Amino acid sequence: MGRKIILDCDPGHDDAVAILLALGNDNIDLLGITTIGGNQTLHKVTYNALAVLEQAHAYSVPVAAGCASPLIRELETAPGVHGDTGLDGVDLPKPSHDVIGKHAVDFIIDTIMGNEPKTITLVPTGPLTNIAMAVRKEPRIVERVKEVVLMGGGIHVGNWSAVAEFNIKVDPEAAHVVFNASWPVTMIGLNLTHQALCTPARQRDIESIGTPTADFVSHLMDFFRKSYAENQGFVDPPVHDPCAVAYLLDPEVITTRKAPIDIETKGDLTLGMTVADLRAPAPADCHTQFGEKLDVDRFWGLIHDAIAHIGEGIDK
Amino acid sequence: MGRKIILDCDPGHDDAVAILLALGNDNIDLLGITTIGGNQTLHKVTYNALAVLEQAHAYSVPVAAGCASPLIRELETAPGVHGDTGLDGVDLPKPSHDVIGKHAVDFIIDTIMGNEPKTITLVPTGPLTNIAMAVRKEPRIVERVKEVVLMGGGIHVGNWSAVAEFNIKVDPEAAHVVFNASWPVTMIGLNLTHQALCTPARQRDIESIGTPTADFVSHLMDFFRKSYAENQGFVDPPVHDPCAVAYLLDPEVITTRKAPIDIETKGDLTLGMTVADLRAPAPADCHTQFGEKLDVDRFWGLIHDAIAHIGEGIDK
Amino acid sequence: MGRKIILDCDPGHDDAVAILLALGNDNIDLLGITTIGGNQTLHKVTYNALAVLEQAHAYSVPVAAGCASPLIRELETAPGVHGDTGLDGVDLPKPSHDVIGKHAVDFIIDTIMGNEPKTITLVPTGPLTNIAMAVRKEPRIVERVKEVVLMGGGIHVGNWSAVAEFNIKVDPEAAHVVFNASWPVTMIGLNLTHQALCTPARQRDIESIGTPTADFVSHLMDFFRKSYAENQGFVDPPVHDPCAVAYLLDPEVITTRKAPIDIETKGDLTLGMTVADLRAPAPADCHTQFGEKLDVDRFWGLIHDAIAHIGEGIDK
Amino acid sequence: MGRKIILDCDPGHDDAVAILLALGNDNIDLLGITTIGGNQTLHKVTYNALAVLEQAHAYSVPVAAGCASPLIRELETAPGVHGDTGLDGVDLPKPSHDVIGKHAVDFIIDTIMGNEPKTITLVPTGPLTNIAMAVRKEPRIVERVKEVVLMGGGIHVGNWSAVAEFNIKVDPEAAHVVFNASWPVTMIGLNLTHQALCTPARQRDIESIGTPTADFVSHLMDFFRKSYAENQGFVDPPVHDPCAVAYLLDPEVITTRKAPIDIETKGDLTLGMTVADLRAPAPADCHTQFGEKLDVDRFWGLIHDAIAHIGEGIDK
Repeated sequence: MGRKIILDCDPGHDDAVAILLALGNDNIDLLGITTIGGNQTLHKVTYNALAVLEQAHAYSVPVAAGCASPLIRELETAPGVHGDTGLDGVDLPKPSHDVIGKHAVDFIIDTIMGNEPKTITLVPTGPLTNIAMAVRKEPRIVERVKEVVLMGGGIHVGNWSAVAEFNIKVDPEAAHVVFNASWPVTMIGLNLTHQALCTPARQRDIESIGTPTADFVSHLMDFFRKSYAENQGFVDPPVHDPCAVAYLLDPEVITTRKAPIDIETKGDLTLGMTVADLRAPAPADCHTQFGEKLDVDRFWGLIHDAIAHIGEGIDK
Repeated sequence: MGRKIILDCDPGHDDAVAILLALGNDNIDLLGITTIGGNQTLHKVTYNALAVLEQAHAYSVPVAAGCASPLIRELETAPGVHGDTGLDGVDLPKPSHDVIGKHAVDFIIDTIMGNEPKTITLVPTGPLTNIAMAVRKEPRIVERVKEVVLMGGGIHVGNWSAVAEFNIKVDPEAAHVVFNASWPVTMIGLNLTHQALCTPARQRDIESIGTPTADFVSHLMDFFRKSYAENQGFVDPPVHDPCAVAYLLDPEVITTRKAPIDIETKGDLTLGMTVADLRAPAPADCHTQFGEKLDVDRFWGLIHDAIAHIGEGIDK
Repeated sequence: MGRKIILDCDPGHDDAVAILLALGNDNIDLLGITTIGGNQTLHKVTYNALAVLEQAHAYSVPVAAGCASPLIRELETAPGVHGDTGLDGVDLPKPSHDVIGKHAVDFIIDTIMGNEPKTITLVPTGPLTNIAMAVRKEPRIVERVKEVVLMGGGIHVGNWSAVAEFNIKVDPEAAHVVFNASWPVTMIGLNLTHQALCTPARQRDIESIGTPTADFVSHLMDFFRKSYAENQGFVDPPVHDPCAVAYLLDPEVITTRKAPIDIETKGDLTLGMTVADLRAPAPADCHTQFGEKLDVDRFWGLIHDAIAHIGEGIDK
Repeated sequence: MGRKIILDCDPGHDDAVAILLALGNDNIDLLGITTIGGNQTLHKVTYNALAVLEQAHAYSVPVAAGCASPLIRELETAPGVHGDTGLDGVDLPKPSHDVIGKHAVDFIIDTIMGNEPKTITLVPTGPLTNIAMAVRKEPRIVERVKEVVLMGGGIHVGNWSAVAEFNIKVDPEAAHVVFNASWPVTMIGLNLTHQALCTPARQRDIESIGTPTADFVSHLMDFFRKSYAENQGFVDPPVHDPCAVAYLLDPEVITTRKAPIDIETKGDLTLGMTVADLRAPAPADCHTQFGEKLDVDRFWGLIHDAIAHIGEGIDK
């Protein structure tokens, strides 16, 4: 059996690849997907999550819809990055299954409290609203989870402002709750994910698998490449969210460094910045760390293998 | 049948009187009490809510425990005002009933969604964490409630800082959510509740009822008088929370004024201030109002009648 | 000889009346006028100051131009209140004198340091930039002035936002410096000046003096009445700035109350608010107070007498 | 004739070396030194500036004392870095000259306005209070200076908080004024100065000059080495301030990059951060740049040559 995770996401092109990476590797036991308004509205990203599972024939993974907007603020979406649907550029299969009748916050709480202590890993790759809500509703989950491995933030670079990343900037207050809870947090931020660039060679390698899902991923990357080139001046698009899943599949794919990390919730220019204090070695009780260096070949190898493993459909 | 309300509170001396006021008047149908960390810890105020119901023999009112801490911040309690138990100064009866097995946030959501639209009134008299959490978890409640009548804030006076009141200052972000949701909000703030002073004459009038509950209230007031004299320089203690319930029993007991009201979440000196814009008449679509003038005799009449009505115990 | 004052102002209709009030009363020795960008640009308000002196034939009062913009922020002017010139509605006499060749900040410092200790009173009726700059450039002035009596702020009402007044909101950081220096500060705020309404009867009383300066003031009031009616819904315009001068002429014209007062420099809704802590009696070492109640008849009597005293021109 | 500069500083060990570097090179015409409360109090750093000039026998360089505290805030000094005197570790020669009778703010303004346009370079190596005050008092200096080359800030590292550097954090509002004025600003921040480490070999090379001033510098470095080792965990101390002067002596010693840079004045964790937006190439009208890479050998060569050039005393 693999590591039990809940993927809390807002698909999103890179979220979609993260879902496929989790599905296509037996070292991960994907207990469920929870959705959160972020890259697009809750309604759209929830549909997208179901559609990605449909694409992989992953019929047994439950999807629970979560919060439509951040803790305090209005939702800001990223249509310039992910298009009007949140997954522009592919023909999404129509989902044959629907969300379960439980809110994401409760799915997270019940899964953590209903499993053995220290067995569940939370993998958020969108705004952290659902996770923060779960902490406030049932504080005991903080002691009971194994760890939180999230995509968000950066040391000290940004994409949604000069020094803030989208997921954190959309709901900085939720991020504040998550980073200040005492559980182990691994932050996979832009400083790391900007190493995970989908070059044409990497994309051709995926295409060479020759399955519908490989095609699906390649079309996602076509759109993502165009979007990142036009909006952010990247030659090749960074594939953020799968990095967090890859770290769980193989910790050696990402070098990490312990450091105190906290969230700026007040700044005029720095709102949503993930502030890491690198002036001294982290204290012994430091519960936060960040990804520093990606083993690029190993990372793309994991992506390739997962898509190959899904094949014509994983039927689980 | 009376107006259906959920009382979301953190008893607390004045919360206790608010509960009794709601119990002792047939024009109110108290569907449940939800508790919130505030005047004391969640554990203590929940016990206190159960004990106050025990005092009144109100065995059929469900109590649901809510959030132990504010949305973003650490909980700050008020032992200097309410003592170590949150209800110092009285011998609390040991509760014969326990909380229900449902979180306050879900009790609020399920009650609102399970009743006819526009029939449920929320009456928060503590920090607004539970209410904000409910809005984020199920945004449809905003359209479906009848209104929110809350004790908190002030125009423009404070007790927990120069211009901020305890309930709002403890969780300003939750207050921001509640005041910015589009439902009707009536704010019963310090400018109003400082008119509801329990003078010795008012207290003697309550004592004259001669029941155990009248005694209970009188002892609460003894402690509250001492606490307000020592800590805030009041001759007679202001009985805040029952004002919100009184307004529902008899709207003429409080004169209200419509005005845009919003919550300061950033200020160094003004954090948690309820900022009302009184420079011009409120716009037609203004959904917020505040209590301006209390009919003091009528107010104390309602209190007296409710305690008299409870008698030896209300057995409901 | 009267009390020695420096009037630091941004004329402005009510500033103009304040200048005339200071000129027309022998109990004031107006050592100089310093100007500050505020109601209009520095260039315009400096011209206006010179023109008001010309109107009164007050040729010996030096005028020193000060800062064109606030300490940190861009200047925001009030053309909607004072018109494009800052003194719309009157035919300004062309000034026969010019500003002196010294910056307002240096005029303030040199005057204070060059006179006996505790003899100079600063009377700012615009943004507090010049005063704060003088404090930072020569901190010894704080010990050496007699006191600061300023028009600005309010308890707890606003005109430039819900709870902030124009002079303070335009340069909250300067106000922070001025209120936190240890000198005695008397704040004449909106709560006081909104009692100084120029009713038609008060205006007719001024007109009855029958001099060019009385006419001048009456035309100022015509414009001010129209402006306040259209922009802020006042029936009669409040004549803010002369209140500060009136307090110096006759302290009994304004009842004051000691209280700690500080400036909010961070709030989203409260930026520039003058936060007074009224929860308890002011501590013994409290150096700030505010005007609470205006003796309206006495106030207008001072205005009348000063304009009458100026007569056809004061030639000083 | 060399480039005309005003050095605005708070000596400070590295400021002292910056003064010597400016004195010992004919390509710099040091018009004056202005002092600012920073590393130590204004009184102490002014004494230190005079003493460093005495050490070099540089009797003709005027010293003007400036502001004792930041624009808005209380002064925070750095005795942990520079000791109780601000120049601990050396025997300071007693100054034979005193400050001139003009405030630093006026010296800056008068020098800029009294020289040809675009000929004066400001070189601040302390908090930016004097410079901001000068801009507010005489805004025309912004158009008239050649450029501002300052030591402060960092991309995106800190020493006085996780992401803020001392000079900027001590007076972030002044820095906001300086970076937002339209003059050319070159920021030599911690990312650059942490490349200017005084290794034992570099120090021995200075000692080999064999003059009293070389000894003086070596003793400064002994103290600085100990201080940085104990307080900030550096093996060799970074010599910040001379980097700004070195850039003026030889622009090729530092590679620069244009980028919009602004100052965070509100953040809880990021107050005083110099936020550079590196997401895209700088716009054509960008007036700010930062030092990116130091030519270490060339830098130390300049230091060596300047100390050698001063010899037994420069007598200018």
